[in-house]
Amino acid sequence: MNGDGPLAGLVVVDMGQLLAAPEAAMLLADFGATVIKVEPPTVGDISRKSGWEVNGTSVWWRWLGRNKYAVTINIKDPRGQKLVRRLIDGADVLIENMRPGKLEAANLAPEDLHSTNPDLVILRVTGWGQTGPYSDRACFGTQVEAMSGFAAANGQPDGPPTLPTFAIADAAAGYLGAFSVMTALHGRDKHPEKRGEVIDLSLMEAMFGLLGPQASAYSALKAMPQRIGSRSPMGAPRNIYKTRDERWLAISCTANRIAHRVFTLIGQGHLLDDPEYSTPEGRLRNVDKVDELVQAWVGARDGNDVIGQFSAAGATVAPVYTIADIEEDEHFASRKMIVDVPMENNESLRMQNVFPRFQHNPGSVKWSGRELGADNTAVFMERLGLSQQEFEEYKRDGVI
Amino acid sequence: MNGDGPLAGLVVVDMGQLLAAPEAAMLLADFGATVIKVEPPTVGDISRKSGWEVNGTSVWWRWLGRNKYAVTINIKDPRGQKLVRRLIDGADVLIENMRPGKLEAANLAPEDLHSTNPDLVILRVTGWGQTGPYSDRACFGTQVEAMSGFAAANGQPDGPPTLPTFAIADAAAGYLGAFSVMTALHGRDKHPEKRGEVIDLSLMEAMFGLLGPQASAYSALKAMPQRIGSRSPMGAPRNIYKTRDERWLAISCTANRIAHRVFTLIGQGHLLDDPEYSTPEGRLRNVDKVDELVQAWVGARDGNDVIGQFSAAGATVAPVYTIADIEEDEHFASRKMIVDVPMENNESLRMQNVFPRFQHNPGSVKWSGRELGADNTAVFMERLGLSQQEFEEYKRDGVI
Repeated sequence: MNGDGPLAGLVVVDMGQLLAAPEAAMLLADFGATVIKVEPPTVGDISRKSGWEVNGTSVWWRWLGRNKYAVTINIKDPRGQKLVRRLIDGADVLIENMRPGKLEAANLAPEDLHSTNPDLVILRVTGWGQTGPYSDRACFGTQVEAMSGFAAANGQPDGPPTLPTFAIADAAAGYLGAFSVMTALHGRDKHPEKRGEVIDLSLMEAMFGLLGPQASAYSALKAMPQRIGSRSPMGAPRNIYKTRDERWLAISCTANRIAHRVFTLIGQGHLLDDPEYSTPEGRLRNVDKVDELVQAWVGARDGNDVIGQFSAAGATVAPVYTIADIEEDEHFASRKMIVDVPMENNESLRMQNVFPRFQHNPGSVKWSGRELGADNTAVFMERLGLSQQEFEEYKRDGVI
Repeated sequence: MNGDGPLAGLVVVDMGQLLAAPEAAMLLADFGATVIKVEPPTVGDISRKSGWEVNGTSVWWRWLGRNKYAVTINIKDPRGQKLVRRLIDGADVLIENMRPGKLEAANLAPEDLHSTNPDLVILRVTGWGQTGPYSDRACFGTQVEAMSGFAAANGQPDGPPTLPTFAIADAAAGYLGAFSVMTALHGRDKHPEKRGEVIDLSLMEAMFGLLGPQASAYSALKAMPQRIGSRSPMGAPRNIYKTRDERWLAISCTANRIAHRVFTLIGQGHLLDDPEYSTPEGRLRNVDKVDELVQAWVGARDGNDVIGQFSAAGATVAPVYTIADIEEDEHFASRKMIVDVPMENNESLRMQNVFPRFQHNPGSVKWSGRELGADNTAVFMERLGLSQQEFEEYKRDGVI
């Protein structure tokens, strides 16, 4: 049960469910950590039954459970609590996402865990955080996407606030959670007198952090992000335009010189004598006119022609892709961004690769999410030394 | 020049511009790393002049530059190249986001850097990655948001694909980049024979990874995310609804039992005898009707009433917030999610705090982004030992 990769030797117990916490654990497993995923017996992780299913198991589990060892423990049973405690006592990291107080109710309070494993890093993931007036309320990604400021500034100006289709808040918390675990481990290893750590990661803060300096803009200037379709408060042109052959292209001008290239290319170079079009502030003031000029030029041409001319002019353009387009794109293929991963019955499943790529000691995908309890024997008998009799008894009583 | 926090003692040279790479470096600085930000003389980082400005400097720089030491070096000048090389030779981490080949053109190729500092972790951030047919093309967050699948599935069904107003792709790469640096450092410290690392982080892969198992759903089932407004392919009801007093509320039912609570609350409990409404699959098939029932109940009540009744019933609901609402919310205040950070002239600026929070050895915000070259003396003379004469000469010649 030892992987390779930069995190080889690191032992992680993943008691999270569904998305943010298990994704943090998955990133650690991707880079070689030994991640033992603990699920409730019989039902398993919620992600096993969440949306699109392949052979009766959701693609969410098959992705989030990859590279992990799957065991079952009923942590409501005192024997289950002792069993998971033995796993945690031998681990570097515990990841959990129960509502505040539930870990404590299972006799697994952080201070208790630190009494026998003082070096343990505990990542606690919740919607609201461990403290504060809302901490007892249920909170999932949707609520975070609504309250962080994202939805209010997502969508068309004449339409409603719009939630994302993708689970952005959870995934952001997964990335930030994995970073915070590695940061706490570094602190522990470099400053051993500091020992273990308890990390209070809220989906709300992970998402709010992702959205940039809106608090600064608002408090100093009373400026705030608005629902402006595909435009951006940082520059113009930046939008999605429709070509003659009905393709959607995204064009943006992060740097002023790129905007100048675009104006020259679309035959409007004469406007660059006017600060209303030659400066970022001027173009933002005249964004309707700017978009009209770009759309008129793009709309008179086919997509490949526009992409070719923009690229030759050193201007940034990209087509709007679906996953079907991605699967056919030569760059995605060349980078092996999607790989075939072994599943049960000698089948395989395509899923995203390990990101980012390390030149010398990279991560890898070894297997997709396993069947419920697939590693009970290896973990409980071989690793923890449970006897055959105990194992059978625990199984019979629903402890595992 | 030594911070506290779990990353105290870690030295990072940040040669990135604008967003993803500097955000990764900012996360390291937040937790105590000594981050030396290298900017081109005179013009500085692009983020200093990007959108909303306070006292003539953008809020982006004030946020991304926080906790960092600001120095200027012209890396097109051979003396500048030698100077930055001396900084890098004394660092643990180099972060850069030049187009592929540009670092090499500045005589700073990874293999050269490793020849004098074999333990160096080099994070290279680009739009497309260091390899592949598109790697020479310009690519910013907008293009990534278009090609990763995000825009195609964001927005209303009868509207166009929609880009996010916030710079999601860059910020996601910032989170993932910070994680990957800490992971490579762990590998270096635990397996010293492996030494330093070169990390190839593309915005495209950071964003594609954020979007979940779309590749699995598509390859196995030909299913793909669609533009469905605020709905979700994972369950119903999940949408934004308008109250009688014209507030927008986000309601979601990640778990089936929560959907049952909602149906009972809105007086539709009798429908739960019908699998078309009692199961997640059934409700997704009847999502128009489900949304109609929820909207009718919500639309007949004021927002506070709906929030109160939903919360009491154990159902998840949240208002759509702007940053103005966030600044007035007691939970955000209680968690100190926004803090006052020192700026020049004894002024201060509100910005998001360090996330997540560590119980024993936390990060902190000590200062906001400094003036261009503010730390040239401290870094070049005190740290690198440049003489007064060299310093003046370099300044005169635009090397620093």
